[in-house]
Amino acid sequence: MRCDHRAEDALRPIRIQRHFTRTSPGSVLIQAGGTSVLCTVNVSTDLPPWMDASKGSGWLTAEYNMLPGSTCPRKKRDREGKLDGRTSEIQRFIGRSLRAVMDMKKLGPRLVTVDCDVLEADGGTRTLSVTGAVVALVDALCSFEEFFDGKKILKDFPLRDTVAAVSVGMVEGKAVLDLCYQEDFTAAVDMNVVMTGGGQFVEIQGTGEKTTFDEKELASMLALAKKGISELTVMQKTCLGEDFLFEKT
Amino acid sequence: MRCDHRAEDALRPIRIQRHFTRTSPGSVLIQAGGTSVLCTVNVSTDLPPWMDASKGSGWLTAEYNMLPGSTCPRKKRDREGKLDGRTSEIQRFIGRSLRAVMDMKKLGPRLVTVDCDVLEADGGTRTLSVTGAVVALVDALCSFEEFFDGKKILKDFPLRDTVAAVSVGMVEGKAVLDLCYQEDFTAAVDMNVVMTGGGQFVEIQGTGEKTTFDEKELASMLALAKKGISELTVMQKTCLGEDFLFEKT
Amino acid sequence: MRCDHRAEDALRPIRIQRHFTRTSPGSVLIQAGGTSVLCTVNVSTDLPPWMDASKGSGWLTAEYNMLPGSTCPRKKRDREGKLDGRTSEIQRFIGRSLRAVMDMKKLGPRLVTVDCDVLEADGGTRTLSVTGAVVALVDALCSFEEFFDGKKILKDFPLRDTVAAVSVGMVEGKAVLDLCYQEDFTAAVDMNVVMTGGGQFVEIQGTGEKTTFDEKELASMLALAKKGISELTVMQKTCLGEDFLFEKT
Amino acid sequence: MRCDHRAEDALRPIRIQRHFTRTSPGSVLIQAGGTSVLCTVNVSTDLPPWMDASKGSGWLTAEYNMLPGSTCPRKKRDREGKLDGRTSEIQRFIGRSLRAVMDMKKLGPRLVTVDCDVLEADGGTRTLSVTGAVVALVDALCSFEEFFDGKKILKDFPLRDTVAAVSVGMVEGKAVLDLCYQEDFTAAVDMNVVMTGGGQFVEIQGTGEKTTFDEKELASMLALAKKGISELTVMQKTCLGEDFLFEKT
Amino acid sequence: MRCDHRAEDALRPIRIQRHFTRTSPGSVLIQAGGTSVLCTVNVSTDLPPWMDASKGSGWLTAEYNMLPGSTCPRKKRDREGKLDGRTSEIQRFIGRSLRAVMDMKKLGPRLVTVDCDVLEADGGTRTLSVTGAVVALVDALCSFEEFFDGKKILKDFPLRDTVAAVSVGMVEGKAVLDLCYQEDFTAAVDMNVVMTGGGQFVEIQGTGEKTTFDEKELASMLALAKKGISELTVMQKTCLGEDFLFEKT
Amino acid sequence: MRCDHRAEDALRPIRIQRHFTRTSPGSVLIQAGGTSVLCTVNVSTDLPPWMDASKGSGWLTAEYNMLPGSTCPRKKRDREGKLDGRTSEIQRFIGRSLRAVMDMKKLGPRLVTVDCDVLEADGGTRTLSVTGAVVALVDALCSFEEFFDGKKILKDFPLRDTVAAVSVGMVEGKAVLDLCYQEDFTAAVDMNVVMTGGGQFVEIQGTGEKTTFDEKELASMLALAKKGISELTVMQKTCLGEDFLFEKT
Repeated sequence: MRCDHRAEDALRPIRIQRHFTRTSPGSVLIQAGGTSVLCTVNVSTDLPPWMDASKGSGWLTAEYNMLPGSTCPRKKRDREGKLDGRTSEIQRFIGRSLRAVMDMKKLGPRLVTVDCDVLEADGGTRTLSVTGAVVALVDALCSFEEFFDGKKILKDFPLRDTVAAVSVGMVEGKAVLDLCYQEDFTAAVDMNVVMTGGGQFVEIQGTGEKTTFDEKELASMLALAKKGISELTVMQKTCLGEDFLFEKT
Repeated sequence: MRCDHRAEDALRPIRIQRHFTRTSPGSVLIQAGGTSVLCTVNVSTDLPPWMDASKGSGWLTAEYNMLPGSTCPRKKRDREGKLDGRTSEIQRFIGRSLRAVMDMKKLGPRLVTVDCDVLEADGGTRTLSVTGAVVALVDALCSFEEFFDGKKILKDFPLRDTVAAVSVGMVEGKAVLDLCYQEDFTAAVDMNVVMTGGGQFVEIQGTGEKTTFDEKELASMLALAKKGISELTVMQKTCLGEDFLFEKT
Repeated sequence: MRCDHRAEDALRPIRIQRHFTRTSPGSVLIQAGGTSVLCTVNVSTDLPPWMDASKGSGWLTAEYNMLPGSTCPRKKRDREGKLDGRTSEIQRFIGRSLRAVMDMKKLGPRLVTVDCDVLEADGGTRTLSVTGAVVALVDALCSFEEFFDGKKILKDFPLRDTVAAVSVGMVEGKAVLDLCYQEDFTAAVDMNVVMTGGGQFVEIQGTGEKTTFDEKELASMLALAKKGISELTVMQKTCLGEDFLFEKT
Repeated sequence: MRCDHRAEDALRPIRIQRHFTRTSPGSVLIQAGGTSVLCTVNVSTDLPPWMDASKGSGWLTAEYNMLPGSTCPRKKRDREGKLDGRTSEIQRFIGRSLRAVMDMKKLGPRLVTVDCDVLEADGGTRTLSVTGAVVALVDALCSFEEFFDGKKILKDFPLRDTVAAVSVGMVEGKAVLDLCYQEDFTAAVDMNVVMTGGGQFVEIQGTGEKTTFDEKELASMLALAKKGISELTVMQKTCLGEDFLFEKT
Repeated sequence: MRCDHRAEDALRPIRIQRHFTRTSPGSVLIQAGGTSVLCTVNVSTDLPPWMDASKGSGWLTAEYNMLPGSTCPRKKRDREGKLDGRTSEIQRFIGRSLRAVMDMKKLGPRLVTVDCDVLEADGGTRTLSVTGAVVALVDALCSFEEFFDGKKILKDFPLRDTVAAVSVGMVEGKAVLDLCYQEDFTAAVDMNVVMTGGGQFVEIQGTGEKTTFDEKELASMLALAKKGISELTVMQKTCLGEDFLFEKT
Repeated sequence: MRCDHRAEDALRPIRIQRHFTRTSPGSVLIQAGGTSVLCTVNVSTDLPPWMDASKGSGWLTAEYNMLPGSTCPRKKRDREGKLDGRTSEIQRFIGRSLRAVMDMKKLGPRLVTVDCDVLEADGGTRTLSVTGAVVALVDALCSFEEFFDGKKILKDFPLRDTVAAVSVGMVEGKAVLDLCYQEDFTAAVDMNVVMTGGGQFVEIQGTGEKTTFDEKELASMLALAKKGISELTVMQKTCLGEDFLFEKT
C-alpha cells in the first residue's frame, strides 16, 4: 500500500491553472498532490551572448528555484551566488526537455526564459515543472501575433509537440509511478522519464544509488512512465483546449 | 484623476488568503490591485550566531525577493551572490516593522523567519509585505501550543499589536494613498509609513528625489497614511477573526 | 544630562578641512566630536552602463565605507564581495541626498563619484558624510573651468543649493540633536533628516525599533533637526567662502 | 565508417597506469584514445559536516575538473567561484557511481575524496573518470592495513564490486559505442551507462536533445553499453591483478 | 635630474603623526612626499582558526588597501570579493616584514592586526606602510599594561627591533632611492628592501620586467637602500622618543 | 647532510618531457625529484581588454594551480572564487619571469597563456614552473609558421633568450641549492632567483621570516643560484635541440 493509498500505476491528482499571474505572458500554477510549481514564461529579443542573432535562430533557457517556505523545515535561500548542484542539474533537465520539442528556426532570434518556482515541494518537482512549463510556453508563444491568429495556431508555431515528464522508481521491491517525497526518499531506484505527446523518449535518467537494478526492473519502470505521461498529455491538451490546435505541417 | 480611477485617499482592493501553501505554518497570499506577495513564516530554534540563547530571547528576520515573472520585462534572478541595495533595504524594513510589535522575551529562544516573495509587482510591494506578513506571523506563532489554546490566544502571545504599512506620495501636486507602479514612477515625493493597530508610528521613510517637500505636504501625506493603515488594520483583524483575540495584559 | 554635557539642541563641535588630500579634486575631512569622515569627490566621463550619454545628462553615485580602525573593536573589512545591508542603505541615502540638489542636465554627461570613508566612528557617520560631501562636491565641480570663472561660480553651476543632514532621536524620553554613538545605541527612536540650505525637506527616515512614537514626538524631533541643519548650512557656506557664490538664476 | 575507423561496437584503445603520482595513495592515469584523466584518491577522517561520525559510517565524494590545456582552444579556468552546471553534474555522476559499490559501514567513519582531473579531452571524460577512479580507489583503500593483508584483500574490504562506465549514442542513424568528441558533437542521442562488474545497472542517462528516440533505439544502445562495460571490467581486473581478489562474502 | 629635484640618494620629506585617530590603540599617519598612509593597529584575543591558542603564541596579520580617492583617476573599490594579486602580495609583504621582528612567544595568544589604508598614492606605498606600521605597532603594544610600565618598555616587549623599508631602482641607467610614482613607472628595475634597525636584511624583492640587471647594479641599489633605511630608522626612533626604550635583554 | 644526500650545490635530478599532451601546442612535463609540473602553453588572438590591439603588441599571462592530489594531505580545490595570496603571487612571478625574455612587438597582437599545473609537490614548484614553461613556450611559438621555418627559428622569433629559475636558502646555517619541501619548511631564509640563459638577473625574491640575513649570506645564496641556473639552461637547450637555434640578431 502506498502512503497516500494510490495504486502503483496511479498519478497524484493534477491541477493546472493558466494565467495565474498577470505580469508574464505565460503563467501556470501546476499542482500534483502536495507539490505545486509556478511556471512563468517570458520571451525577449536579448539572445545569450554566445548566439549569433544573424543566424535567425532562437534559444530556450530554464531556471528552477524552491521558495524557502516550500519545504519543512524552511529551505535556506540560495544567496551565496553558488547554484547548488541539484538546482543546476534540474534546470538543465527542464531546458533540455522543452528544447526537444522546439523548432528554434521558427522561433526566430528570440530568447524564451522559463522560470519554475516551487511553492510547495512533496516530490516530483522537476518533472512537474516540465509538464506545467509546456502549457505556459504555449501561452507565451501565443502572445506573439505571428504565431497565433484568433483561435488557431498557425503552421509556423515553434512547438512541434507537447512534452511531459514523470518520476518512477523501485519502492519496496515494486515499480511505482509518480513518487511523493516519502517514497522518493526510500526508493531503491529513482528514474525520471520525459516523453513527447507523440510517445517518443526525450530523456531517461535512472539512478540506483541505494541498490543497482536489472533489465526487468528497468522495463517495469519504463512501462509505468509511458502510462503516466500519456495521461499527463491528455490533461495538458484539455487545459489548453482551443488554443492549441497543432496543424498538420 | 488617478490612473485606476481611485479617489486620492482610496486603497486598492485588498485580498488576504490564509493557509495558501501547506508546507509553512504561516502562509498568506496578499493582493492589492496588481501586486501580490506570498508571505510565509517559519519558526526554528536555530538562533543567529550573534545571539546568546541562554538569555532566553528570540529574534525575527525577514527576507524579500521578487520572482522573475513578477515584472514585465522579466526580472533577472539574483544569482550573483550580491543582494542588491534595494532588496537589502526592503527586507531590513520588513524585519524592523515586525520586530516593533514583537516581545522577544515572550517569543523565547526561537528564530522567526519571514519570507516575502513577490509573485506580481505593481507598486507597494514592501508595504504590502509587512501587512500580509503579520497575518502569517500570527498563524505561525499559533502553531505553538503554548501560545494558542483552542480558540483563544493566551496572555503570553509574543505579538503586542498588529502592524500595517502603506505608501503615500506627492503625485502631480497632490497627496495620494497607496501608489501603483505608474504613480510611484512619476511621484515627486515617495513615503512609506508603518503604524501599529493602536495608531503609533513605527517607521516613516520619506524621500524627495525628484523635488524637495515642505511641512504642509508632509502633513497631508501623513494624514492619508493614517487613514489607509486604519483600514488595513480592520482587514487584518477581520481575516484573522476568532484566532486573534489580543487579551488585555 | 547628555553624556558629553551638551544641551539637547546642541550640535557637537564641527570641523571641516578642505583639500585634505591632493589626489582628488574634492577632498574634505569633516569631524563632529569623535566622528571623522574623509569625503573625496571625482568626476569622470564614464557614465554608468544604464545611462544613455547622448541624452546629455549626468549622474551622481556615492560609496560609503568604514575603515577597520574606525571602531573599537576593529571592524572586519568587507572583503567577501557582499555589501552588508547597512552599508548599502547608507550609500544609497548619501547619493539620494546629494542628487536632490544636483541639476543633472547642467552637469552634462558626466559621472560624479562621492566616496565617504569613515576614519573614526562615534555616531552620525551617514549624516556627517552628506554634510561634508557637499563641500567636496563644490570643489570637484569647480575644477571644471566651465563652471568656475576666477572667483565666481557661473550661472550654469550644476548645484542648485547646499544640502546638510543631521540625526535626531528620542533618548530617555526627550528629543535630542546629533546623537553620539552611546545615545544612538540607547535611543528609543532614531531619525535622520536631510534638508536643503533653503529649508526644504529632502529625506526623513525615522524608525522606532525599541518603541513606537506619536505625532508630538515626531514634531519635536523635526524641530531640532531644522535648527541643527540651519547651523550646519552656515558652517558649510563659511567654509566655502568666496568660492561659492550661488548666483540668482 | 566512424571517424577513427573503429567498428560500431569497438572501444577506443585503453591504457591504465597505476601509481602515476606519489603524493596520493591512489593515483591512476587512464587513457582512451585522445582522452586522458588523472584520477587520485585520498582518504581522511574529516567527515563532511552533515555526517554524524558516531554512527560509524563513511562517505565518498568526487570532484571533476578539466585542465585549461585539455581542450583546444584552451578552456578558461573556473576561478569565479561558480561551478558550471556541467561540471557539477559530472562530479555528482562520478560520486553516485562509485558509492553504488561502496559499503559505507565497512569504510567506517572516513571520507574518501576522488579527484578526476582531465589532462586531454576527446569525448567520454565522465565515463572514463568512473572507470579509472575505481582502480585508484582500490589502491587508496589498500593503503589501510586493515583492508589489505599482504597480497590479499580481506573480507571487510569496503568495495562490493567494480564499476565501469561508457558512453553510447545514435550517430547517423546507428548505435555506436564509446563516442569520441566529434561523434558526441553530432550524436542525435547521447547516453551514459554505468554498470557493476557483476552486470547490474547503476545509472542510465540518455538524452535526445537533437531528436527523440524510440524503444528499439534504446535497446540497441543498452546492448552496446553492456558489451563495452564487460570489456572495461576485464581491463580493470587485469590491471589490479593480485591486489584485488574479492573474496566471497 | 630627478622629477622632484632630489639627489639620487635622497629620501622624500617624511612626516610621521602618532595618535592620528582615537578609535585604535595604534594609529599613525605617515607621509613621504605625495604618498600618505594611515596605519592602525589593533590587538585581540581572537586567534586565527589555524592557530592553537594553548601553545601560547600569537600572530600578526596585515591588510592593505588604497582608498578610491588616493589615485587620479579614482581607483575602483574592491567590492567583488576578489582581492587583486597586487593587494594580496603587498599585505603579505607587510605582514612578513613586521613578523620578522616580533617575538610571538612574548606576544602571547593574541592576534595583532595591522591596517594600512593609503590616503594618497605617489609611489612607495608598500614600503611606507611597513615603516609607519612599526610605530603604530609600538603604540598598540604599549596599550597593554604588562608591556609598558609608566615611561619604560619592559623586558618582555614582543618587538625585538624596529624594521623599515624603502624602494630603490634603476632609472635612466642610474640607481635611485625612494622612487615616486613617475620614477617607478619608468624604472627598468624596481626593488623593495626591508631591513631591521640593526642593519640585517629582512626581505629583498627585485624585479627587472623592463630589462634584466647585473651584479654591479644590484650592489648599487642595495647600498642606496641601506642608506635610506638607516635614515628612516632614526626618524622612527625620534618619533617614538621616550616611549620606546628597548632594554638590553 | 641534506635529507636526500645531495651536496649543498647540487640540483635534484631533472626530467623534461616535451609534447606530454596533444591538445595544447606547447605541453611539457617537468620533474625535479618529487616535484612535477605540467606546463601547457596556448596562443590566441583574444587580447586582454586593457590592451589596444591596434598597437600591434601582444602579452603573456600565466596561471598556476596545484592539483588536489599533489600534496599529502590532499589540497582543497580553490572553488570559492578567491585566489589565495600564494597562488596569485606565484602566477605573477611566472608571468613576469617569462615576459622578461619576450619581445612583445615581435609576438604581435596575440595573447600567450601559460598554465602550470602541479601534479606532485615537493618544494620548488614556482621555479620549476618557470624552467619548464620556457620549453613549452618555444614549442607553442614554433607552431606558428611565421616563427618557424622547417628546422630553424627565424630572426623574428619573439623570445630573446631562455630563462630559468631555482630556489636557494639558508638551512641549518648553510646556503643550499634547490630546496625540497622539508628543507624549505625549515629554512631560515628562502630565496627564489630567476636568470636568463645569458646570465642576467630577472628577479630576486629573498625573505627571512624565521631570521634575518646579512650581506655575506646573500652573496653565498646568489652564487649557488647562478650555478644551478646555468645547469638548468644547458638542460633546456639540450631538450629543445635543433628546434631552438637562436640566431644572432
